Amino acid sequence: MAKSKTKNAFYAQSGGVTAVINASAGGVIETARKYPKKIGKVYAGRNGIIGALTEDLIDTSKESVAAIKALRHTPSGAFGSCRYKLKSLEQNRREYERLIEVFKAHDIGYFFYNGGGDSADTCLKVSQLAETMGYSIQAIHVPKTVDNDLPITDNCPGFGSVAKYIAVSTREASFDVASMAKTSTKVFILEVMGRHAGWIAAAGGLASTADTEIPIIILFPEINFDKAKFLAKVDENVKKYGYCTVVVSEGVKSADGKFLADQGLKDAFGHAQLGGVAPVVASIIKEGLGLKYHWGVADYLQRAARHIASKSDVDQAYTMGKAAVELALKGNNSVMPTVVRVSNKPYKWKVGVTPLNKVANVEKMMPKDFITDDGFGITAKCRQYLEPLIQGEDYPPYKNGMPQYVRLKNVAVKKKLGEFKL
Amino acid sequence: MAKSKTKNAFYAQSGGVTAVINASAGGVIETARKYPKKIGKVYAGRNGIIGALTEDLIDTSKESVAAIKALRHTPSGAFGSCRYKLKSLEQNRREYERLIEVFKAHDIGYFFYNGGGDSADTCLKVSQLAETMGYSIQAIHVPKTVDNDLPITDNCPGFGSVAKYIAVSTREASFDVASMAKTSTKVFILEVMGRHAGWIAAAGGLASTADTEIPIIILFPEINFDKAKFLAKVDENVKKYGYCTVVVSEGVKSADGKFLADQGLKDAFGHAQLGGVAPVVASIIKEGLGLKYHWGVADYLQRAARHIASKSDVDQAYTMGKAAVELALKGNNSVMPTVVRVSNKPYKWKVGVTPLNKVANVEKMMPKDFITDDGFGITAKCRQYLEPLIQGEDYPPYKNGMPQYVRLKNVAVKKKLGEFKL
Repeated sequence: MAKSKTKNAFYAQSGGVTAVINASAGGVIETARKYPKKIGKVYAGRNGIIGALTEDLIDTSKESVAAIKALRHTPSGAFGSCRYKLKSLEQNRREYERLIEVFKAHDIGYFFYNGGGDSADTCLKVSQLAETMGYSIQAIHVPKTVDNDLPITDNCPGFGSVAKYIAVSTREASFDVASMAKTSTKVFILEVMGRHAGWIAAAGGLASTADTEIPIIILFPEINFDKAKFLAKVDENVKKYGYCTVVVSEGVKSADGKFLADQGLKDAFGHAQLGGVAPVVASIIKEGLGLKYHWGVADYLQRAARHIASKSDVDQAYTMGKAAVELALKGNNSVMPTVVRVSNKPYKWKVGVTPLNKVANVEKMMPKDFITDDGFGITAKCRQYLEPLIQGEDYPPYKNGMPQYVRLKNVAVKKKLGEFKL
Repeated sequence: MAKSKTKNAFYAQSGGVTAVINASAGGVIETARKYPKKIGKVYAGRNGIIGALTEDLIDTSKESVAAIKALRHTPSGAFGSCRYKLKSLEQNRREYERLIEVFKAHDIGYFFYNGGGDSADTCLKVSQLAETMGYSIQAIHVPKTVDNDLPITDNCPGFGSVAKYIAVSTREASFDVASMAKTSTKVFILEVMGRHAGWIAAAGGLASTADTEIPIIILFPEINFDKAKFLAKVDENVKKYGYCTVVVSEGVKSADGKFLADQGLKDAFGHAQLGGVAPVVASIIKEGLGLKYHWGVADYLQRAARHIASKSDVDQAYTMGKAAVELALKGNNSVMPTVVRVSNKPYKWKVGVTPLNKVANVEKMMPKDFITDDGFGITAKCRQYLEPLIQGEDYPPYKNGMPQYVRLKNVAVKKKLGEFKL
């Protein structure tokens, strides 16, 4: 591809959205706008890669400077996301041919894909289109995932804000249950996301610090649930502190490998019920110890909570978007910008870069030495890793008591091609 | 009682705690400290009225100025709360005699009780001790309840902050599900508190405003759940907007008067399971419409969320504590300070006062004209009432990314009496 020629860019959001993925979008679009001689328009895919396949493109040049700026403080995916993984070229050549057709029709030379592990795989395949199908394009992956499970990068934009939300909420709910414990609730259980890796559950451990000690039991997906050991620990905490908080990952499994949440619940009519893992843990405590409990399930609240986003996280999300464009302008293809940690105290980080084939389809699990020997807590090493990621607050603007999140106009680009069936 | 003589004060927190009940405590203690010639020490009951009965008093004079100031931004009950309702004088004379014994032993002439409807009843009984048992005391109730169900006062400290949390969270989660709806989750269900009255559920309606419209269905405890009508409404919203948010009160009942949450759930072993109402609603949607959903249960998170407290609420909580002391100093007994609304735009309010016998055991329900005709939303009148209560942000201080909530020393006052069995 001749670097001097102006090409348009494609940007899309993929997978579960986060409190800061729009900050990355802002980083991509604002940076691209600074180089009009190299990058023409930034077209966003409506609902992720589906927007590219169906030629449903959004013309971001129709959005005001203020609207794009507001992406930085707006949670969710402003252009719509999707759960859609491209198959391999051998399995679905038709989709790749369609992508090239759309890219050609709209003169797209840059492909920015904002997502997690699956998306990195899609981005990798697109980055190889020059070799495999003779269409020259630069594909850069922009890291995003609340699960924090991408390799190479120190951490993933999206995770720090979930971690902060869980740490803050766990501290607040623990203060609450401590107040009630004398005559009422003694155990509070919070269910958090993370089906495969316990990064988010680990963040619950940050609620307890040297100056604000809180008895917290963490149930990690990495550690098989041991009922007797768990009940003994709850009992010990309640006897010592009067109360206890449990942070449980949705992905916790029994020794038999089944999800603890999957208890075969049936209602009075025999219909299967999908409960969470928090009520299961609550019932185990009630039955085993007879203690009064409360439980909460954070679900989308945790990953959408832009109101309590981590400033580090927002900065990194924005910077990853910006870096992706800069990498493209320097001629890179098939790479992902990364966060490189320079120091913990004070927290310093810089932008790195990694080839995409090192990222796609690799899951970064919690290191063994991040979990305490009893399996219920985080080690000092884990805390050193996590603490910088929740640093700083980055409050959105408010109007009449409500955060002002932007909704873009999302004007469609005129279609030039025929329909495509997914 | 001779006004000129210095008497000590008793202060206690009662019932479910809130994000701002400690702000009221701060108002009481800081104001009392300004009148050392009239009020000696403020003794706080450890775990509410139980602290008075068991002579487990906390000497708040041992707390620094900074610590008492920090109560304003600290959620939960700093002295411990309790769920314990005094019986009538006829039913349990022994408890009243004990209270007087403790009050006499510690020269207590002021009684400040911080709670909801049940607590107002306790406070009323204490305020009548001069008449009924010949012990002169001034008892003032300080209003607090997330349920917003106290009469006379325009609203209850504690409610505004829950309302803000629910409104903000509902908006954020709605943005999230809207992003995912094309290929994944189409309905998000949030379970909120409020077993009898739908005030908190109503706050979910604030997430949708003229400039940020969101399709929200509210399930109020005041309206019997009608499955067919509900499913039709969800279907309509999803067809029109692509997604839908449901805010459901824990207290929603079926036409037969049973809690919707009480579905007689049993696990694979036949053990009863206590689920929330959110998963029940989720299952109804899955079965009736086949839509993908997510659900969350805010539970303690909503009432402990000091990080997103309403500034109006914090101000009112503090002012109610301050006003209680000022009312006592003016010679009042058996009263409660109230919030009197002066105007909506701009929001202005002032302090009022009401006799306690008008408050105790009276529940303020949602007016019928606050709920839309279809039973699923809030009216403009309701919005006018609610919006001022979530005005303003009042962020706590942070250190290393975490809110700095104070823990008091809670030094016990030396006991002078024998033990008392509850």
